[in-house]
Formats: sequence, structure tokens, C-alpha cells
Amino acid sequence: MPLLVRFLGTAASRPTVERGVASLALIREGQTLLFDCGEGTQRQMMRFGVSFAFEDLFFTHTHSDHILGITGLIRTMALQGRTERLRLWAPRGAGKTLRQCISLGGERTTFPVDITELEAGATLSRGDYRIETFAVSHGPSASLGYALVEEERKGRFNPELARELGIPEGPLWGRIHRGESITLEDGRIIEARVLVGERRRGRRVVITGDTRPCAATIEAARDADLLIHEATFADEEAQRALETGHSTAREAAEVAHAAGARRLALTHISARYSLNAKELEREARQVFRETVVVKDGTEIVLGLTEELATQLPSPDAD
Amino acid sequence: MPLLVRFLGTAASRPTVERGVASLALIREGQTLLFDCGEGTQRQMMRFGVSFAFEDLFFTHTHSDHILGITGLIRTMALQGRTERLRLWAPRGAGKTLRQCISLGGERTTFPVDITELEAGATLSRGDYRIETFAVSHGPSASLGYALVEEERKGRFNPELARELGIPEGPLWGRIHRGESITLEDGRIIEARVLVGERRRGRRVVITGDTRPCAATIEAARDADLLIHEATFADEEAQRALETGHSTAREAAEVAHAAGARRLALTHISARYSLNAKELEREARQVFRETVVVKDGTEIVLGLTEELATQLPSPDAD
Repeated sequence: MPLLVRFLGTAASRPTVERGVASLALIREGQTLLFDCGEGTQRQMMRFGVSFAFEDLFFTHTHSDHILGITGLIRTMALQGRTERLRLWAPRGAGKTLRQCISLGGERTTFPVDITELEAGATLSRGDYRIETFAVSHGPSASLGYALVEEERKGRFNPELARELGIPEGPLWGRIHRGESITLEDGRIIEARVLVGERRRGRRVVITGDTRPCAATIEAARDADLLIHEATFADEEAQRALETGHSTAREAAEVAHAAGARRLALTHISARYSLNAKELEREARQVFRETVVVKDGTEIVLGLTEELATQLPSPDAD
Repeated sequence: MPLLVRFLGTAASRPTVERGVASLALIREGQTLLFDCGEGTQRQMMRFGVSFAFEDLFFTHTHSDHILGITGLIRTMALQGRTERLRLWAPRGAGKTLRQCISLGGERTTFPVDITELEAGATLSRGDYRIETFAVSHGPSASLGYALVEEERKGRFNPELARELGIPEGPLWGRIHRGESITLEDGRIIEARVLVGERRRGRRVVITGDTRPCAATIEAARDADLLIHEATFADEEAQRALETGHSTAREAAEVAHAAGARRLALTHISARYSLNAKELEREARQVFRETVVVKDGTEIVLGLTEELATQLPSPDAD
């Protein structure tokens, strides 16, 4: 199944008419993971059709444009009668601020909310995928990037050839697909590799949050199918990017290039480029061709076989 | 000059695709007053062209759908380099929650933020207008309604007649307009009432916030030009309105009728009527004809001479 990335807010620091503040959803095998939750995220989820029935919300850091939406989101979940646990994951030291956010207004929450602080390098294993964390470089307090890394998948099974060889459809097909050699009733022995292609590497999607260009991102994004990197500024504000702990579009592209990533999506766009980010895209593409500056509502679809499509939001979306 | 009411968020409890949570702006003589500040208010202000250069923000109560936008709004004001004081006004006991909202995320604020708790019955005098507060009925904690009350204005001056009478344009006109009798050089004495009409009553706009129908609102809205009343539910949910401390559209209309208000604007609309609030409007109009259910972006223009126009948001607004 394709892995979907849906951008919910793509502005830096403050929203604009066109762009909400930071949040994005990864949707994989019917499961939604949310990354960051700026003010207004719940409404962006409604607008762009992202389910509220998710369990995990990962924070890159606790600057207000990445966290303020959690209070209203939890409040709405309670109004909807949610009973399932919600798990918040955040860098070291972030728990206190998140607890304040959750208790604001003092209204009743109908479900448990766990907060776990993660060290850089932590890995959450989830069966056929894992979430890896890495330390990005964004000011004095801890900030994390996240990588969703799928485990290798079985090779492709060839059903036509299996039928041709007279192998009955059923449990035998499954055993072959899992790599077993089988013996048929007529005595023939069929090796799995006759019917099953090479094991396929899993997909890797990397999310930086706010950061200067850094070696940890390059390491995490090695061979990634998609690197989602912040790009607050254009070349003309490279000095300001340095001073504020952010990246230019070109710097993000240099990271993607150094990592050998397949695609680069730029987000966290300063208000001055909110309406027209062509300058950012042009500067980044001089370094790394497969770059797109995303908008609120942009969906990136990562197919199993490396096809990648980008859909822009529908015309009525802002 | 006309007095403008701009509705920024008109949803109850939680936002929908169509409606943000509670906030509205009064704009009078170039001065903006904000009432309530739910999540996403700053973006609604940008969308609907409401200035950030305002000084006073009044909270009806501290339920999260009325307050969560203050954190991001203040953060954006700081990013814009604001230095002017911001004054928050709220009911008794609300200060602690507001202070928590302001300090969330721990980022630097570049300007002073005052928080003042108001008792019901308090009046803020502002020269040619005043803000009066009254206790509404919405659960156990203190909730306030607000009335903007203009002082009486001078009667209308008749410049044509003044010229006909040979009174030279200049300081004399001003003295007559202020009610003085004057003696001309030729000895004629001109009484002010010859040239100046009756003093005109000021306008009165009343905002309930969340409330059950109550006598205090009827008292405050006596002869009001505009009563802005919550109407969370339709008749079919009258029991639920009672249990949750809210009003039906019909109950709001009964208040407007009992008060002898001139116009009624219904807001704080439950999600189930978010797209289509015709039912609310119909039920209210059976009791009080001059009712409108507002949308995000609706502007109500109160002229000096009682003209009242309602503009719906432009088609691209949501």
C-alpha cells in the first residue's frame, strides 16, 4: 500500500492566510501518525480529511508554532467521546510544557494521554516499521528529527508462473512467498527464488522539524525515499537563517544531495514567501532537482515500488 | 462613522471546516476591540482583515474554545515587534488560566500584557463610549456578557440653514453645534435649537458569550441596536441546551424580544448546524423577525442613523 504524507500546516513561526503552522500526517497501512501540532491543526485535519482516530503524536520541539494545537485537539477528541489512549512523544525536557498545554482550561479529558520524552537515537519498534530519532540543530533546547523506516518486505510473488507450474493456490503460495522451498505431491521440489523476487527494501521518510543543516540529518536521510526538511528562508536571508537556527532552501537541498535522498519536500516557509515560494524552489533545485515546496494540503504518495506522485491541494483549499 | 462587527469564529465548542471557534471584533472610530479568542483567531483576523494593532481583548469566560488563540496571537504580535501594552479583561478567577496561556512555550514577549479580572456590573469608561459588564448564566464559574454603550451624540447641524441665515462658517458653527446660543455682529441672537436637531442616542451592542437565556441579558440588551447571543442548538435539543448551560436559537430570540432589541445576531453554532443553520434562523424568526445566523467573516454595519446592513463573507472565505 502507498504511504501518504499529508501536509497540514507549512508556515514558519506564524500562520498566514495561505498557510497554517506546523503539522503533518503520515498515513501507512491505514494507520495515521501525526508530527507536530501547531495552532489550528485540528481544523486543518478536518479540512484535509485526516482521521482523529490516531494514537501517536510526535513533537520535534516545543516552540509554540509546533505545539499549541494540542490543547484544542485533545478537547475536541474528548467532546467526540474518545476513550483510547493518546501517546505524545517529544524531546527531553518537553514534557512539562506539553503537560501545561494539556491541562489548560482545566476541562475534563475522557481518555488517557501519555507523554514520553525521547533521547536522540531512540528507536520505537512497531513490527514492520520503526521510528528512529536523531538530534537536529535548533537552538539550545533539545530538538528531534524523526525517521519512519520500514522493514524489508518480501520479494514479489509470481502467481502466473505458480499456476503454470501447477502449484495449487492456497497455503503453499504463502509458504513459497515466505521463502520456503516446497515439495509438490508429484515429487517436484520448487525453490522459493523461482517464484519470488528479491526482497525489497522498505521505505524511509525523514522529518527534520526546525533545524540548521546538520550531519545527523544527512545520516538519517541516507537513501531516504523522502526527506521533509524545513526551508524557512531564501538565499537572501542566509545570515538570518544562521542566526535563528533555521535553514535556507538551498541548504536543505545540500543536505538532501549529500544524503543521496530520492526526494525533498520543503516546508516551514517564512511568511514573506507564503504566497509565492518559487524563489525557494528555484534555489533548491539548483542543488537537488527532485525538490518540491509543499503547501497546506499537499499530499505526497510514496508507492511500494518507488513511484512517487505529488498532488496539490484542491482549488478550494487555501 | 459606522460601527462594524466582524465575526471571526462562530462555532460552538469545536471548530468545523466551515467555522472557527469563538471570536469577534468590534471596530469603532478606527479602534478595534476583540471579544474572545478561540484557537485560530489570529489566522481568522488575517483572513478577514482585522488589525493586530488593538489594545483590548475581552474574555466572556475561560472555556478553551474561547481562549486558546491568545497564546499564538501574542506570539505573533511579538514576532511583529509589538511594543504597545495589550490589555486582557476577563471574569473573576480567569486570570490564572490566562496567565498560563500567555506563558506557554516560554517564549519571549516583547510587550506588556495586563490581565484584569472584572466583576459583573463593572463599567470601563472610554470618553465617548463605555464597556459595561453583566453576569450571564453558564455553569459554575463566572461568565460575563459585555455591552458597548456609546454616549449620546450631538444633534445634527444644518449647514444650509446656517448659510442662509448669514452665519459665517468657522468657530461659530462649532459653538452652535455644541448647544450655545450666539449673537451675530448685526445683533441677531440665534438659538442653537434653530440649527441643531435633537441629541441622538448612542448605539448599544451587547455580546453574551455562552449563556442560558437570562434576565441580566434582557436588562443589558434593552433597546440595543444589536444583540449578539449564542444559539448553540435548535428546538430539538432544548433539553441539551438546558443541561449544558447553552441556549437554543428560539430562546435567544425570546431574550431579544423581551429586551426590545432592534437586531439579533446568533453565533456559537453547534457542529451539526455548521453547514446549514436555516433551522436555527427559522425557529428564531418565529419569535423575533430581525434575526440573522452569522458565519465566519460576516460583517454587521451599524450606521449612526440606525441603518443596519449585513454582509456575508466573500465566496472564497470558508
